[in-house]
Amino acid sequence: MRNFMDKDFLLTTEFAQRLYHEFAAQTPIIDYHCHIPPKEIAEDVRFSTITQVWLGADHYKWRQMRSNGVPERYITGDASDFEKFEKWAETLERAIGNPLYHWSHLELQRYFSIYEPLTKANAARIYEECNKKLKEPSMSARGLILRSNVRLLCTTDDPIDDLRWHKQLAGDKSFPVRVLPAFRPDNALYIEKETFADYIEKLGAVCGRKIVSFSDLTQCLSERLAYFCSLGCKVSDHGLSYVMYEPCTKEQANAIFQKKLAGGKLLPAEELQYKTALLTYLGQEYHRLGLVMQLHYGVKRNNNRYLFNQIGPDTGFDCIDNYTPSACLADFLNGLAETNQLPKTVLYSLNPIDNAAIGSIIGCFQDDSAIAKVQHGSAWWFNDNKTGMEEQMTSLANLGLLSNFIGMLTDSRSFLSYTRHEYFRRILCNLIGQWVDAGEYPANLAFLGSVVQDISFGNCNRYFDFQLSD
Amino acid sequence: MRNFMDKDFLLTTEFAQRLYHEFAAQTPIIDYHCHIPPKEIAEDVRFSTITQVWLGADHYKWRQMRSNGVPERYITGDASDFEKFEKWAETLERAIGNPLYHWSHLELQRYFSIYEPLTKANAARIYEECNKKLKEPSMSARGLILRSNVRLLCTTDDPIDDLRWHKQLAGDKSFPVRVLPAFRPDNALYIEKETFADYIEKLGAVCGRKIVSFSDLTQCLSERLAYFCSLGCKVSDHGLSYVMYEPCTKEQANAIFQKKLAGGKLLPAEELQYKTALLTYLGQEYHRLGLVMQLHYGVKRNNNRYLFNQIGPDTGFDCIDNYTPSACLADFLNGLAETNQLPKTVLYSLNPIDNAAIGSIIGCFQDDSAIAKVQHGSAWWFNDNKTGMEEQMTSLANLGLLSNFIGMLTDSRSFLSYTRHEYFRRILCNLIGQWVDAGEYPANLAFLGSVVQDISFGNCNRYFDFQLSD
Amino acid sequence: MRNFMDKDFLLTTEFAQRLYHEFAAQTPIIDYHCHIPPKEIAEDVRFSTITQVWLGADHYKWRQMRSNGVPERYITGDASDFEKFEKWAETLERAIGNPLYHWSHLELQRYFSIYEPLTKANAARIYEECNKKLKEPSMSARGLILRSNVRLLCTTDDPIDDLRWHKQLAGDKSFPVRVLPAFRPDNALYIEKETFADYIEKLGAVCGRKIVSFSDLTQCLSERLAYFCSLGCKVSDHGLSYVMYEPCTKEQANAIFQKKLAGGKLLPAEELQYKTALLTYLGQEYHRLGLVMQLHYGVKRNNNRYLFNQIGPDTGFDCIDNYTPSACLADFLNGLAETNQLPKTVLYSLNPIDNAAIGSIIGCFQDDSAIAKVQHGSAWWFNDNKTGMEEQMTSLANLGLLSNFIGMLTDSRSFLSYTRHEYFRRILCNLIGQWVDAGEYPANLAFLGSVVQDISFGNCNRYFDFQLSD
Repeated sequence: MRNFMDKDFLLTTEFAQRLYHEFAAQTPIIDYHCHIPPKEIAEDVRFSTITQVWLGADHYKWRQMRSNGVPERYITGDASDFEKFEKWAETLERAIGNPLYHWSHLELQRYFSIYEPLTKANAARIYEECNKKLKEPSMSARGLILRSNVRLLCTTDDPIDDLRWHKQLAGDKSFPVRVLPAFRPDNALYIEKETFADYIEKLGAVCGRKIVSFSDLTQCLSERLAYFCSLGCKVSDHGLSYVMYEPCTKEQANAIFQKKLAGGKLLPAEELQYKTALLTYLGQEYHRLGLVMQLHYGVKRNNNRYLFNQIGPDTGFDCIDNYTPSACLADFLNGLAETNQLPKTVLYSLNPIDNAAIGSIIGCFQDDSAIAKVQHGSAWWFNDNKTGMEEQMTSLANLGLLSNFIGMLTDSRSFLSYTRHEYFRRILCNLIGQWVDAGEYPANLAFLGSVVQDISFGNCNRYFDFQLSD
Repeated sequence: MRNFMDKDFLLTTEFAQRLYHEFAAQTPIIDYHCHIPPKEIAEDVRFSTITQVWLGADHYKWRQMRSNGVPERYITGDASDFEKFEKWAETLERAIGNPLYHWSHLELQRYFSIYEPLTKANAARIYEECNKKLKEPSMSARGLILRSNVRLLCTTDDPIDDLRWHKQLAGDKSFPVRVLPAFRPDNALYIEKETFADYIEKLGAVCGRKIVSFSDLTQCLSERLAYFCSLGCKVSDHGLSYVMYEPCTKEQANAIFQKKLAGGKLLPAEELQYKTALLTYLGQEYHRLGLVMQLHYGVKRNNNRYLFNQIGPDTGFDCIDNYTPSACLADFLNGLAETNQLPKTVLYSLNPIDNAAIGSIIGCFQDDSAIAKVQHGSAWWFNDNKTGMEEQMTSLANLGLLSNFIGMLTDSRSFLSYTRHEYFRRILCNLIGQWVDAGEYPANLAFLGSVVQDISFGNCNRYFDFQLSD
Repeated sequence: MRNFMDKDFLLTTEFAQRLYHEFAAQTPIIDYHCHIPPKEIAEDVRFSTITQVWLGADHYKWRQMRSNGVPERYITGDASDFEKFEKWAETLERAIGNPLYHWSHLELQRYFSIYEPLTKANAARIYEECNKKLKEPSMSARGLILRSNVRLLCTTDDPIDDLRWHKQLAGDKSFPVRVLPAFRPDNALYIEKETFADYIEKLGAVCGRKIVSFSDLTQCLSERLAYFCSLGCKVSDHGLSYVMYEPCTKEQANAIFQKKLAGGKLLPAEELQYKTALLTYLGQEYHRLGLVMQLHYGVKRNNNRYLFNQIGPDTGFDCIDNYTPSACLADFLNGLAETNQLPKTVLYSLNPIDNAAIGSIIGCFQDDSAIAKVQHGSAWWFNDNKTGMEEQMTSLANLGLLSNFIGMLTDSRSFLSYTRHEYFRRILCNLIGQWVDAGEYPANLAFLGSVVQDISFGNCNRYFDFQLSD
């Protein structure tokens, strides 16, 4: 029996242990997709309790507490920080086999030097220990980023964002970590929303004009994109229920857009046409500018209206939408590739059963304009666990080249979540180590070590063109 | 190499062995969903040959015999009991890696003290041995239930059933096992069937009136539900090809219902609207009464009309229907949750690829009205095997709290199938034991032992409110 | 740590090693589905470089090279044979966990006696060694087939093919391997194609008449089928995006067919009706003649129009189509079974998530007209790897009888790919060996050895009625 989460956690062979400790462990982190508010980095926020940093905005943990029958008061309500922590400790103890069990204990180990399992019984003591530790200088937002060996991170930003915090951070020589914006124009795509017209008006205001046509819209988005790029933006992001493909002319797209602005009700096909037209335009722009397009899909959001009405979005009421037609995805990518305007693209489905379809699609669109130009994104959200990562990487290895994978991101709002990169790297090293141990790949430590470092850092640095030194 | 199916069958680590032998093995069984005819318990039926108890109504075995090229005469036809048994023995020997191989040998071991593998060669001898054993008093229906350590079981019953056998059993002090009805109003939901109007007439007759409107129908169903509850019913059950969501008004539902009774042909959308309306009504009733709603979906029945016409339903001609839109399922649950009327609900899909979607959906609807109020049901039917159970529990552990799982049921027509609980518990203990052995969870035997007992008995007892003593 | 790809490659238990070495290894090969041009066998072609035999037509390898950023010039372009080989070596080294890594090294070991891993560094030396070896007599097309212990292979042929090479081979006593045609009438089914009318004209010409009606068409196809059978054809093959079921009358089918021939544009439903009618007719013919019907589905072809326009079909731009309704598949099979005209049928989906649905469907249509009459085909194309094969066989074992499986085929255009049978057999033996080692099946070596031989040769020989001696 192995010790609980010791230095060889998840590393089941000696070769895996060497791959991890000699190659992966010291490699710096590029967190190319996260949801950290840049303001908190710029202001170098501090946390007075572990509840704030652990439970303040973590809907993964909230869901588990609800699954344990914890009343909402202790989750998003007015209970005290300690009460909330105690309920979480009690829940965590029961989270056998859940990634939160590993994430939480990795965070306790790496940031708080606490190596014992958190339980209801020791919750009070650990709470105090953590809060004391949080007073140390290295436990501020910037301190946590630095001690995690992060070299660069990309936030997620709306086109109308003024990026003031990114600008401030770019000029701040005291903080060596690059904090870049990512372009996420979901609000310009979600034409079905009631707030769409308001958003378009705001976008126009930011660009100093009134948007009255589809070409006004694309012009404004291109201007904002140029502004984002001037601050180092290398990547965009899109959240979709599925990747649609209903091509239409520019004139049709314009008519649909103007119908919506005039208060008209769109047909389902019109929504899809508008989205296809705009996303195609944006894809072409990303291609022109050398940016990466991320497509996150397979999500159905805000399913529990009763609780949504009480506590709002991103609070733990999203699920997998299993309508993700691979034919549309392939056709959408082909629509861009046809004119040789397909940008570097990363595909993430929330449904793990889409792994093989994605793996088969990316292989249709590779070329020599970038190594592994179309990527199968790392196991996302509900799949961000040992099983999910093993399945995503095994699928990618079967269908493409794992060694060209751009690897892990946190997708997180938390400054403690960089240990997910460690979690990923251990699983990666173990996967490769098992193959070597089974005689399925030669035991070439130097070569495989370099591959592990590529997947941890080098591939991503090259793919996004971050130009970090090794 | 391990011995064939010895006491540590499926228990690959020492920790798993201790979890199973010290905690799971002696824990009693609650079989909260089965298809045993209560009459057979009330009459305490006996079996003169193992063919009767093993092959009499087991379409799992029939399918395998057909896959082995066995003529129908030896399956559901007029061959002798021994001939059928011999054909089964010959088939079983070839069922390498099939759950029936394990189920059958667990049954031979536990009920017949036969520890050798059944083959064509020893079929005649084992047949005689089993038949001799069947003469013992402990091998009657009640005897088998008692020696299996069953404390409570729920049958599956139509609303028009008079539940006479349940009443008789409730009054029979000589049999300590509780036998409760479960409410399965499929016939009231399947408005597309030719037999629908007849069924509605029968339902009305049972309630002493003529049903001429949708509100008559719901009133009658509520009356029957009250009657079921008076006999201890705690759970309902629904079989659906998929969980639909096409909301309509009560007036529309009534119009559709009356159109059907008048002999009209319904549009597909009307069927879905009727079903949505009625299932929503029933869900609200279950919520009001504290009952559990089971939804079994993803099935396409009676696919082989040629053989169906010869031997009828439930004879082995059903398959997975892979049209199971997760968006509809989430919307249906939300329709109930919106007014805070979502009952405790257990979701079972026949398609194992739905595991992740289900796991993501249940997390949207948990609250403090019950611990793990919405459950991902145990691996069902075609998934009721080692792989299927491991996948369902791993998925549940990744996305929710495995420790709050209500665990296993037999879903069976056979008095010998309680060993499936043993099979499940061994797999459960092995799964947790492997995590502990790998250092992924602390080796806390007492705590994990209590979790295993919860999943085997306690969670289920609390969730359904059976109020059995521990 | 095990040695890299030594004699016990993939055989992780002693029992598996014995199953493989004592039973599977020497068993001859029947390759019942491949894409080798019979002309190349008849002419006994030779290869002057390994690039020709390895990279000449292998879109699996091409995809990986593109994923590695290799320019098209080195893939399908005018680079030299050595340049192409070197780029492939460089790519292969990075193909960690990919089946091509194993396939390629098995081929180097078995045909070229090269046991070291191919890398960029040793590419030049290995290139020379292989080319030298290719000069040996045993390295011609026929030599490779013979030394691979192949007893029979089925090519894939259009109904209008004159089968001259098959005839020539049948009469050639110097080559003992049977080379049979397989009937693949895709061009008669793909009514949506622009080339359809041309094809129908050609088919008519081959049959010496003008096809003007649906009954002309079916008559001609039956004539061609009879001709194929006269040359030993035992199997048909169909490539479909999905198995549809839209029944119509013969008159409707005829009207659709004539509309198309007259240059009309078909509705989507008409396409499906035509395909249902024609495939049903063909299925009935296969049943009458005792032929096997193979259905390959779940594919979306030629997704990258930009590159397709440059280099044509079957060059690596196909992907999984995840629209594969199991209800239609079941209804289509039932349509044939209803009149007791369902032929022996093998189902292959390109999407591995269809495994369980297929397993549940085949069980509905088994009968005593053939052992395991409806088969779940071996893991196909993108699934033809260790994971894919383990999943397909585990699913089949769970839902049906693995021991009646007809096993492996290469589906390949290459004379070196027979080692995929070895790969499959090792994985099969390992799977069964692991079950035995875990005590899940008795350690009956003789019986399981015979099962392994059945799956490698005997089942297939009996199922297709090839009548080879053992």
